[in-house]
Amino acid sequence: MSQSGTSGRVYLVGAGPGDPELLTLKAVKLLAEAKVVLYDSLVSREVLALISQTAFLVDVGKRAGKKLLTQDEINSLLVSYARQEGPVIRLKGGDPLLFGRASEEMESLRRAGIDFEIVPGITAAVGAAAAAKLSLTDRRVASQVLFTTFSRGETGNWLNWAAITPETTLAIYMPGTHYGEVAARLMESGLAAETPCVVVSQATRAEQQVRWSSLAALSDEDQLPAPSLLLVGKVAMHNSEPWSERLRPHSLAQLSAAEFQLQSVKPHQ
Amino acid sequence: MSQSGTSGRVYLVGAGPGDPELLTLKAVKLLAEAKVVLYDSLVSREVLALISQTAFLVDVGKRAGKKLLTQDEINSLLVSYARQEGPVIRLKGGDPLLFGRASEEMESLRRAGIDFEIVPGITAAVGAAAAAKLSLTDRRVASQVLFTTFSRGETGNWLNWAAITPETTLAIYMPGTHYGEVAARLMESGLAAETPCVVVSQATRAEQQVRWSSLAALSDEDQLPAPSLLLVGKVAMHNSEPWSERLRPHSLAQLSAAEFQLQSVKPHQ
Repeated sequence: MSQSGTSGRVYLVGAGPGDPELLTLKAVKLLAEAKVVLYDSLVSREVLALISQTAFLVDVGKRAGKKLLTQDEINSLLVSYARQEGPVIRLKGGDPLLFGRASEEMESLRRAGIDFEIVPGITAAVGAAAAAKLSLTDRRVASQVLFTTFSRGETGNWLNWAAITPETTLAIYMPGTHYGEVAARLMESGLAAETPCVVVSQATRAEQQVRWSSLAALSDEDQLPAPSLLLVGKVAMHNSEPWSERLRPHSLAQLSAAEFQLQSVKPHQ
Repeated sequence: MSQSGTSGRVYLVGAGPGDPELLTLKAVKLLAEAKVVLYDSLVSREVLALISQTAFLVDVGKRAGKKLLTQDEINSLLVSYARQEGPVIRLKGGDPLLFGRASEEMESLRRAGIDFEIVPGITAAVGAAAAAKLSLTDRRVASQVLFTTFSRGETGNWLNWAAITPETTLAIYMPGTHYGEVAARLMESGLAAETPCVVVSQATRAEQQVRWSSLAALSDEDQLPAPSLLLVGKVAMHNSEPWSERLRPHSLAQLSAAEFQLQSVKPHQ
């Protein structure tokens, strides 16, 4: 696969949702040995702190909505650094292959004959679901999950999924702070006003906030700090969970199954 | 949040797609200190090898399609071990909150008043995309991703997403080995026969295989070993990638932006 010649390899690395303990082992090793790192604004300070002290860091993110560099400029930088400096790490919030524009960077690297590797990260929707302690799928009520964004402008095709089913969980990246607008669009698309939802702000970080709501009530919710994520669907039905109900006594069948399992230890390795 | 009393906490931990380097730091730490681990059959041998040698391991997976334990039995076991043995790790292939039946386990734990925590993992679709080096989203051709399964039986609502758009990437978990059946259903749902797709078998493991195809051609592909994942959509248009084309020279604007960036190093910490 390598067409690298003498150029350094580029690693497109997921920085996860914020908590540095949610980095992969591979990401941690790469950051500790890094020489050049190009990073986005969504990468948390705690993750940046794990980068080798001798590495050269390049901030290619946004500040107050203003881009420091265009995507074309970032693509060119990746290629230049890989040619001149050897291994380069392109560090992206969440996972590089979900809403991370990795496609364009990979194309540039292929055109330049530079070898690259993807190191996955925990994507924001999964971090948000973990923070809210809700499962994105549930074989009883949610057979699938749609990862999407709410972007006013750019593509304009946000409503293409008008026929979304009630058994689909929606994970909406970057819902902005105008939740009411998102909720209105979802209801126009056919989702019931009482559909439960939850906003998770700064998931897995110290400042994490979780706000349970419904589409009808969402417009009245206070705005929470970015980055945030909106999860919509039956799985977000927080208040119906039987938090206080006690477990019924074990059945004999369950106990004997448990005893059976006590025999089967350590796997063959 | 804790209602644990004297019971141990349960950690629902994602084991990722197979490569142990794709475990999160947090998962590695928990496995190294584990006392009791209940694990699925999708967890790789290399990941199991990272579990403390003194831990008590319980295999709650399937063997040749036959379940060792029902979900109710697993739920009961989790509660019993947490009460009797202290901290318990429930280790699941991929991420616990995507197609992992975590919802039912969390309900049982809440009913029993046992505190729990979710430790996300790299889900199979992301591992497969990383293996194939394709981005699941692309602002030009793929605005969203639908994570779904192909299950004959059980729910029967697989076709509810008949109105899926051409700008949606489909990540189909557990497509089985009868790719032709999956392809036929997708084409019945309105996807074009020439829609590109890729099957990734045993992503991120040593035995990994990547097979590029199209819906029309999929039924003729050899079966690949499970676990596999099927990615469908324009992002899977592998052969159109300009692998050999050389990058055009940098523009002056790009170079000056690069120079500007050379000033902005180390973040404030």
